[in-house]
Amino acid sequence: MTDVSIAPAVTTGPIAGSTKVYRNGVPVRRVHLTNGEHLDLYDTSGPYTDEEAVIDLDAGLPRREVIRDRGTQLQRARTGEVTPEMSFIAEREGVSAELVRDEVARGRAVIPANHNHPEAEPMVIGKAFAVKVNANIGNSAVSSSIAEEVDKMVWATRWGADTIMDLSTGRDIHQTREWILRNSPVPVGTVPMYQALERVGGDPVQLTWEVYRDTVIEQCEQGVDYMTVHAGVLLRHIPLTVNRVTGIVSRGGSIMAAWCLAHHRESFLYTHFDELCDILARYDVTFSLGDGLRPGSIADANDAAQFAELRTLGGLTRVAKSHGVQVMIEGPGHVPMHKIVENVRLEEELCDEAPFYTLGPLATDIAPAYDHITSAIGAAIIAQAGTAMLCYVTPKEHLGLPNRKDVKDGVIAYKIAAHAADLAKGHPGAQARDDALSRARFEFRWEDQFHLSLDPDTAREFHDETLPAAPAKTAHFCSMCGPKFCSMRISHEVQEAMAQKSREFAEQGNQVYLPVVTT
Amino acid sequence: MTDVSIAPAVTTGPIAGSTKVYRNGVPVRRVHLTNGEHLDLYDTSGPYTDEEAVIDLDAGLPRREVIRDRGTQLQRARTGEVTPEMSFIAEREGVSAELVRDEVARGRAVIPANHNHPEAEPMVIGKAFAVKVNANIGNSAVSSSIAEEVDKMVWATRWGADTIMDLSTGRDIHQTREWILRNSPVPVGTVPMYQALERVGGDPVQLTWEVYRDTVIEQCEQGVDYMTVHAGVLLRHIPLTVNRVTGIVSRGGSIMAAWCLAHHRESFLYTHFDELCDILARYDVTFSLGDGLRPGSIADANDAAQFAELRTLGGLTRVAKSHGVQVMIEGPGHVPMHKIVENVRLEEELCDEAPFYTLGPLATDIAPAYDHITSAIGAAIIAQAGTAMLCYVTPKEHLGLPNRKDVKDGVIAYKIAAHAADLAKGHPGAQARDDALSRARFEFRWEDQFHLSLDPDTAREFHDETLPAAPAKTAHFCSMCGPKFCSMRISHEVQEAMAQKSREFAEQGNQVYLPVVTT
Repeated sequence: MTDVSIAPAVTTGPIAGSTKVYRNGVPVRRVHLTNGEHLDLYDTSGPYTDEEAVIDLDAGLPRREVIRDRGTQLQRARTGEVTPEMSFIAEREGVSAELVRDEVARGRAVIPANHNHPEAEPMVIGKAFAVKVNANIGNSAVSSSIAEEVDKMVWATRWGADTIMDLSTGRDIHQTREWILRNSPVPVGTVPMYQALERVGGDPVQLTWEVYRDTVIEQCEQGVDYMTVHAGVLLRHIPLTVNRVTGIVSRGGSIMAAWCLAHHRESFLYTHFDELCDILARYDVTFSLGDGLRPGSIADANDAAQFAELRTLGGLTRVAKSHGVQVMIEGPGHVPMHKIVENVRLEEELCDEAPFYTLGPLATDIAPAYDHITSAIGAAIIAQAGTAMLCYVTPKEHLGLPNRKDVKDGVIAYKIAAHAADLAKGHPGAQARDDALSRARFEFRWEDQFHLSLDPDTAREFHDETLPAAPAKTAHFCSMCGPKFCSMRISHEVQEAMAQKSREFAEQGNQVYLPVVTT
Repeated sequence: MTDVSIAPAVTTGPIAGSTKVYRNGVPVRRVHLTNGEHLDLYDTSGPYTDEEAVIDLDAGLPRREVIRDRGTQLQRARTGEVTPEMSFIAEREGVSAELVRDEVARGRAVIPANHNHPEAEPMVIGKAFAVKVNANIGNSAVSSSIAEEVDKMVWATRWGADTIMDLSTGRDIHQTREWILRNSPVPVGTVPMYQALERVGGDPVQLTWEVYRDTVIEQCEQGVDYMTVHAGVLLRHIPLTVNRVTGIVSRGGSIMAAWCLAHHRESFLYTHFDELCDILARYDVTFSLGDGLRPGSIADANDAAQFAELRTLGGLTRVAKSHGVQVMIEGPGHVPMHKIVENVRLEEELCDEAPFYTLGPLATDIAPAYDHITSAIGAAIIAQAGTAMLCYVTPKEHLGLPNRKDVKDGVIAYKIAAHAADLAKGHPGAQARDDALSRARFEFRWEDQFHLSLDPDTAREFHDETLPAAPAKTAHFCSMCGPKFCSMRISHEVQEAMAQKSREFAEQGNQVYLPVVTT
């Protein structure tokens, strides 16, 4: 990397109110409260938030030891082996290593961990675990640079992105990915088709299996942890899309459809799928079977094209697993709320419960510039129903390439959706953070409230807007209601009055003091 | 109003790409598309977006004629009368006037229309109609002015707020409300307790029924359309809150709890409820029975205190209706997703399907500064289940008084939630906007996409960030993917290729051309 003088600058240092600690070698973010307590949180941010760490982007992150000769995590799980990655993940998720192994063995969870990406901290994607969030980054021909994309990667993981997809389609695709991989503390996914298309000058018709295969091998060698492959877009599915309102909205899907039609042949991704499995197995790269025919509008949700492809992905899932390759399944897209759960049920049925990895879905089409919100609604619902990882959508969706601010807005919106789903699923430990924050709120420990929040900086900034002085950070009110109307202050007085009544009650020999009330 | 030199300045003029038209006297926002078509949208913004209108804030908005001597909308609906307000609403909602009358007569819908607020355009709140959004405005002792609050009112209705609540607790409560009422095109709600508390110097213990009653009468005279009354907070409920994580978080609820405990007497709102009904009936003011014991944290959701109060509200609903007073019921608060639907079912069962009017709910506690999003998730789900009106939450919730930007962010997030619910409920006509926008998107009619969106200004601004030049507004790509990778462009080519195949197919005598594929 040293020959590219891109000099990226990234954000380092602890998140406000937290320090990085290691529990049995596993990094956690420890939030220190003013009452002497602390709360440990799952931490995706890698060494960048460790005050002790020396960050050298040219050298890349430290590398963990990798066992390369015993096959994939799936293969090893099947033999009963608890890998070092599984042990790490068990500590990270607060579950038994045996649960991790079992879920991976059954194909209900994946550990995207290319042997050639030892910089990443192992993590698991599966519905038995905390819901994960992916952040898409990457340049386009119109916008951005390597330095900006490396910065976005660090920025996204700082705010909680569990994986990153580098979807670069512009200049320096290989170099951009190299910088990201060597410096990413989380697994990195790609859509190899984008680079393959660049290689043939951007014309889908010129694509060949050989060009695609060589691209995949190059990316496997580099260390990409999971790859989106749109192998489910078959020639016979294409006619099902012609009466759609928004046709084919997946880039990979539209490219393959164009190729199939131009050559009047079946997709080379489909006809060469066995070979592809052999390549991915060699590095333990996880398939993310792409939904090339996902709906791009409310009108097209849950239609014949979408579900025909999903059925094909089910078949491919079984092929991949027979090769020992880990698989997850990508999902929509744009889906109205009442049609969301059906997607999960069908995916689980057709794809043997392979982890579902969904883009949103957006619950309406009418809010460009706010699609992090339209899709956080759908994402929360689909995650509650069993989706294992949510691909974020930023406010720029449909309008332009996300910048640094958009990346953070997208990640935070999706951390909300993922956490809301964890709560709804009764995920062990999820509610501890809500409870700690709410107790801080009720006790007017403003600093603790900020530090326990998903974004301490913005929470503080908002509070500062109207009450910037330091004493306001322990005041028993805020500018929303002012001192006289603070329900929480009054509520404390109510509780004190109740306690007083209770003492009187005891003193008076525990006779009932409540008046008789007729409703 | 002329003696107060506050000189508020408000935003006027059409929303980008739209004009105001009147259909049978009912204002609609007409979006003009570049393909010659148009789409008419429900319009809450009043004369402020009418290019022809002359806005004079000192004089207030034009006033419609009001029939004052035939009782409330509920009473008239019961006698079979279709009021002018019902006819207006029928045109506005695109339904029959008889449906409006029937829903009002059954108490499943309310028309908040104080005889003394003839400036407002009639609207309906009920689950058979489009889901509505309320925006809270109002100053606090710490922040804001009359001019700012009038501006927020116009600003909120511009972006789609269906009602406004003036929750002022600071200076000039009466004057602020007067300016808002005389200039508001939508119904205005209040919590009279706030002004009553100001009158007794901010000490809940000093409150009396007489002070409260006189405040209510003053507000009825001014034209307030609906009032939050926390009459369901009973003495016997208070002990149920002592072990909560966040106690009592409703301002009105905490005030009444403090009063009850201090005097060791039942709430005067409860003991004088009949009198209150008589007052509200005189003006046709709608009750919004407040949930003074709503949960303020995930931990406290759906607890005994909350549901005990809801049961009491059910009893009060029947009392109010026996007086001919319209009623809606307020709902939580903070509720994890899996506990949301139970709230709607219980409310419908206990309160005879009176319209449910909920604050969010927030699906998690951990995202202060983003609670418009945590709550839009809950709001969409609860509206799908039957909530009739959603009270917005702004990004400033828990942190400070919302400013102009927060108001817009809150309204847009809630228009998303409400529309997502309309789609999920299959509300007639809801999907037309999604389809029109998605068709514009697929056909690269960027201007139309902006104009059909909830916020045309921000959508355009985001697009301008990377592609500001005018030709980009008809280009067949954006900066997200760049020209080569635009799925929609490729998808058009796929459709053209399919059409070509189809022509060849016909020419060749309709023989099957698809290859045999084995899955």
